[in-house]
Amino acid sequence: MDDLDKLGLATASAKARKSYREGGIPIGAALVYHGSSLDLSNAVVLGCSHNQRIQKSSPTLHAEIATLEDAGRLKADVYTKCTMYTTLSPCSMCTGAILLYKIPRVVIGENKNFVGGEKLLKEHGVEVKVAGDTECEELMARFIKEKPEVGKVHLYSTNYAR
Amino acid sequence: MDDLDKLGLATASAKARKSYREGGIPIGAALVYHGSSLDLSNAVVLGCSHNQRIQKSSPTLHAEIATLEDAGRLKADVYTKCTMYTTLSPCSMCTGAILLYKIPRVVIGENKNFVGGEKLLKEHGVEVKVAGDTECEELMARFIKEKPEVGKVHLYSTNYAR
Ligand SMILES: [Ca+2]
Ligand SMILES: [Ca+2]
Ligand SMILES: [Zn+2]
Ligand SMILES: [Zn+2]
Repeated sequence: MDDLDKLGLATASAKARKSYREGGIPIGAALVYHGSSLDLSNAVVLGCSHNQRIQKSSPTLHAEIATLEDAGRLKADVYTKCTMYTTLSPCSMCTGAILLYKIPRVVIGENKNFVGGEKLLKEHGVEVKVAGDTECEELMARFIKEKPEVGKVHLYSTNYAR
Repeated sequence: MDDLDKLGLATASAKARKSYREGGIPIGAALVYHGSSLDLSNAVVLGCSHNQRIQKSSPTLHAEIATLEDAGRLKADVYTKCTMYTTLSPCSMCTGAILLYKIPRVVIGENKNFVGGEKLLKEHGVEVKVAGDTECEELMARFIKEKPEVGKVHLYSTNYAR
């Protein structure tokens, strides 16, 4: 993995671990601006956050949505020069948010615990890269095993894991 | 329009007007529980809100997302017995949120000012009803005319209107 994606995914992963330590769903994300090249030297982390379903009792603050909130209101063309990093394959809502803001590139930590809107993203011309990160995968699997009731309600029933 | 849909759309419309009075984007929504029949006598408005892009400087609190937040965390099966009312055709993010929570029915005030994810909803078996409400249509058109810069940035560039 190149330096930019290493930074982006590590930033998202740190948020996932923070959420896990708080007893929350361990999914993190980061929105990284890089301009028209994928060069780390131009990169800015515009926002990063984690799923806040448990922490804020929120049905919509998934990692990617919370990250867009963390980044705040940006000019439309800024999004078009960013990559969204997320530790887990994005659900249909987060997929839609990525399409809404025309974010051209998504790097996914893992899609073993859940496969989301990757196909729809690709159909709309978004570049999708699955890193196959074992740390992301193991943390999510551990959470589902430790809190099966949360896994069942939050992940399975709401389409959030296979 | 039957009584249930009249109530739901009127509730969403009141929120759109509130947002307009606050100088915000005049889009409102309501999540109404009705059980397995579409009978008004069983109905409960679980949540209702409006777009809060201007008011809360939020990139993700569209009317439907704010409405899901207003309703709070619900059991997964509650969503499957609800209708989402929204004054304007839902964008890709809100479309994805409706699919995430498996809300089976969406009633749209108008789709003249913007056509969102109606096709995707239908492909996933969601019932989509467009009310063709002239009040919704006129309020949104007035806003776009009065605040073309907001219309341009928030609506057009982020895929929010044709
Ligand atoms: Ca942050
Ligand atoms: Ca409300
Ligand atoms: Zn999501
Ligand atoms: Zn929306």
